[in-house]
Amino acid sequence: MELNLNADLGESFGAWKMGDDATMLSIVNSASIACGFHAGDPQIMRRTLHAARRNRVSIGAHPAFPDLQGFGRRAMHVAPDELQAIVLYQLGALAGMARVEGLTMTHVKPHGALSNMASEDASMARNVVQAIKAFDAGLILLAPAGSELDAAGRRAGLRVAGEIFADRAYTDEGHLMPRSQPGAVLTERAACVAHVLRMLEAGAIVSASGKRLEVPFHSVCVHGDNVHAVEVAHAVRDALTGAGCTLVALPDMSALR
Amino acid sequence: MELNLNADLGESFGAWKMGDDATMLSIVNSASIACGFHAGDPQIMRRTLHAARRNRVSIGAHPAFPDLQGFGRRAMHVAPDELQAIVLYQLGALAGMARVEGLTMTHVKPHGALSNMASEDASMARNVVQAIKAFDAGLILLAPAGSELDAAGRRAGLRVAGEIFADRAYTDEGHLMPRSQPGAVLTERAACVAHVLRMLEAGAIVSASGKRLEVPFHSVCVHGDNVHAVEVAHAVRDALTGAGCTLVALPDMSALR
Amino acid sequence: MELNLNADLGESFGAWKMGDDATMLSIVNSASIACGFHAGDPQIMRRTLHAARRNRVSIGAHPAFPDLQGFGRRAMHVAPDELQAIVLYQLGALAGMARVEGLTMTHVKPHGALSNMASEDASMARNVVQAIKAFDAGLILLAPAGSELDAAGRRAGLRVAGEIFADRAYTDEGHLMPRSQPGAVLTERAACVAHVLRMLEAGAIVSASGKRLEVPFHSVCVHGDNVHAVEVAHAVRDALTGAGCTLVALPDMSALR
Amino acid sequence: MELNLNADLGESFGAWKMGDDATMLSIVNSASIACGFHAGDPQIMRRTLHAARRNRVSIGAHPAFPDLQGFGRRAMHVAPDELQAIVLYQLGALAGMARVEGLTMTHVKPHGALSNMASEDASMARNVVQAIKAFDAGLILLAPAGSELDAAGRRAGLRVAGEIFADRAYTDEGHLMPRSQPGAVLTERAACVAHVLRMLEAGAIVSASGKRLEVPFHSVCVHGDNVHAVEVAHAVRDALTGAGCTLVALPDMSALR
Repeated sequence: MELNLNADLGESFGAWKMGDDATMLSIVNSASIACGFHAGDPQIMRRTLHAARRNRVSIGAHPAFPDLQGFGRRAMHVAPDELQAIVLYQLGALAGMARVEGLTMTHVKPHGALSNMASEDASMARNVVQAIKAFDAGLILLAPAGSELDAAGRRAGLRVAGEIFADRAYTDEGHLMPRSQPGAVLTERAACVAHVLRMLEAGAIVSASGKRLEVPFHSVCVHGDNVHAVEVAHAVRDALTGAGCTLVALPDMSALR
Repeated sequence: MELNLNADLGESFGAWKMGDDATMLSIVNSASIACGFHAGDPQIMRRTLHAARRNRVSIGAHPAFPDLQGFGRRAMHVAPDELQAIVLYQLGALAGMARVEGLTMTHVKPHGALSNMASEDASMARNVVQAIKAFDAGLILLAPAGSELDAAGRRAGLRVAGEIFADRAYTDEGHLMPRSQPGAVLTERAACVAHVLRMLEAGAIVSASGKRLEVPFHSVCVHGDNVHAVEVAHAVRDALTGAGCTLVALPDMSALR
Repeated sequence: MELNLNADLGESFGAWKMGDDATMLSIVNSASIACGFHAGDPQIMRRTLHAARRNRVSIGAHPAFPDLQGFGRRAMHVAPDELQAIVLYQLGALAGMARVEGLTMTHVKPHGALSNMASEDASMARNVVQAIKAFDAGLILLAPAGSELDAAGRRAGLRVAGEIFADRAYTDEGHLMPRSQPGAVLTERAACVAHVLRMLEAGAIVSASGKRLEVPFHSVCVHGDNVHAVEVAHAVRDALTGAGCTLVALPDMSALR
Repeated sequence: MELNLNADLGESFGAWKMGDDATMLSIVNSASIACGFHAGDPQIMRRTLHAARRNRVSIGAHPAFPDLQGFGRRAMHVAPDELQAIVLYQLGALAGMARVEGLTMTHVKPHGALSNMASEDASMARNVVQAIKAFDAGLILLAPAGSELDAAGRRAGLRVAGEIFADRAYTDEGHLMPRSQPGAVLTERAACVAHVLRMLEAGAIVSASGKRLEVPFHSVCVHGDNVHAVEVAHAVRDALTGAGCTLVALPDMSALR
């Protein structure tokens, strides 16, 4: 069985560091790179792309609301036209810089509040998908498995990789539990591995209360900004390969061709 | 004789308007579009691109220092690597959005302090040129005629369009007189027309004191943010055609093929 | 009968102008000054304060969400602690600069989406009020008449000036009609005057459908960024004095002592 | 002999952490707190102030150029009026928030490129000093010992605390060696201690080449963002007290009364 292991990287900004990108890039198959709106700046983007190439990791854009102070995690109400323009701008910036580094941007994964809102709001999901498709209809959309965003991508004819999160608990509706709630973020290695294996065995999202939501998924996300991110990523990778999965980059997945 | 008439457009931001882009686009042949660092935001960029296409105006990126509050006009000392990354990011953002609007970005014109500094500092000029060439060696560099930026572009093998300014006085060294000095910006229509015709007849830049600097030029810039911008642009266009010039878009100039 | 006429000023930013503050300051009694988060920058704040002093206009802070691109008009979901810190920061910045200009900041009026959200959400209103009271319990809160913000201010023991808008239509619930709806913003002088006089005679907010909401009000806002702002402001001032009102600065109102 | 030990704190931003402020506050006597322009945001400012109060550390503002991406370390050319406004704004913001936390802002220490430029340029130094004096003539200016900023402060009648840096090498002119040069930043504990003790014994700044510049100093800065910041700060404090110094907060120094 093929699966993809992905992480959100390039989330430093100016003098501020976040995560251990160098090590994460040696573990994952695909990286979603911040585009300067919630994190990342031009130099960090370039360095992250360079490191991704050395590690043969496939890359995608990780567009967000324009909110550095809130790390793109604050819900913002942006008009549809402006939302599309915001996404296009970020895709253009990353795709252009990737090309200069000899890479092709092959996927898009919305970040934070943009992803959360588009995962629950069909109209917003349609707007995000429309911008991605207008930019490049060959892009893979990496979206929370079973979300409105996932559905909108499929309806628009995009290739969609459904994503589950190793370090995030789910509500019974299949949404990510908000970070403000206790238990929303799993920080222990063992808890993350158990969470992923439970979903792998079930072939379904398993909520915090144990409810199963049968949705196809292709990719497992390990966040780079957790305290134990590198440990968790290693352990999840080993658990997945131990369970018989072949880990491949998004554009190499048979299911996405 | 072929000449190009260009303006810097898309310099509104959010709720704030600058200039009458719609009218300017009906006058000029080429537009340099702000990329969000000194002015412009994703939605304004998209609208400006859309309007440029309707007016069959060729488009280029107008990259700048990251300085909204100072409109990119404050000198900033940015390390070479970061400078290149800043330029690449902006080229990527505009080129990507242009493509979605059915346009091809065909030139680059650095803005404000970035242009001024690179016009006098050969090493900085080389860095800017290197970023442009890495992005797309087929791009035309629109640079102050006779500047270090102009020279660096030619040395690197880029097509360079030398630019003169209808509304800016020159020092005897051929640089733009700093905006802080009296007489640096010409606001009267007649003064702008006389300035341009003087340079056209001389085939040279003519400084405020009357000194001639013989440098080739291909394009005349009319700024969009002057009080009488539209009047000036009309008058300069009429004066140029009246003097026998054929006004063409940058990628259509014989001299740049 | 005493009333106050207020405007939101200092909403230019860097090279971008908004409104004709100089003229507005000769018409109104009180000015709410942008604090750099949705508009305004340190230099514009200082100039606006200077001009307010020359015009003997009382001044207040006009704090907003950190959203220059959206002019503070986009709803943002900010945690309570952070919301309070954001308000305190802006109050401090304006109060400090006012003192240097020989002025005392005497009121606070939340801007845009911050005001709209706090006008409908009692918990958010309480947070905003708590920050204002912690900063200076003697400040007057200028809040939409009859809103949750108005109520929260009174409950906390602040002096509250209820505000009605000359150029904005009301819903039947007494909220400002969202700008996205047709008819939400009145731009014609005559319409604004009629709207204000109708509410003055009724001693109540009158909604677009004619519904009356009896709430006390002390101040009439004329926006500075409307096309006909100066004309409207003049006309509203003349109409109010013609109707027998005495127009006074907020800290001079008998009802607020 | 009385000396002060100070650190620059509150330099996190949004989701990004910098330094171990909690520990540093248990070591130093005075903290210069970022005001949101190069680092810090309203919530971080408030938390830092709160922690400073618990640790009985005296506090000051650490104003900077508006340059988050460059951490205020990039030289920017800002007009005199705007420079003063930028400083005033930041002083107001911090002073206001400090008051709410029950603290009094007692000093000001310009940050990064603002400090470096004002340390070498007498006219810029005068502008910075004028803004500080206009805000509160009782404030202590914490400035590099022997710099133009130090001199301008004294000339204007401000109390000035001359500062030396435990972790930065000096040029023979008494300026901080630029961070771009090798050896500019001392990271080893022993090297920092030796550097400080050498200056303490000499009663002078000692440059990297061994040159002595006899200038009075009152305060030793330990940076919070070095890798070994906490260790260095502990070691410097122990070395100073071991050498017989009494460490006191800036407003408690006899020399500054």
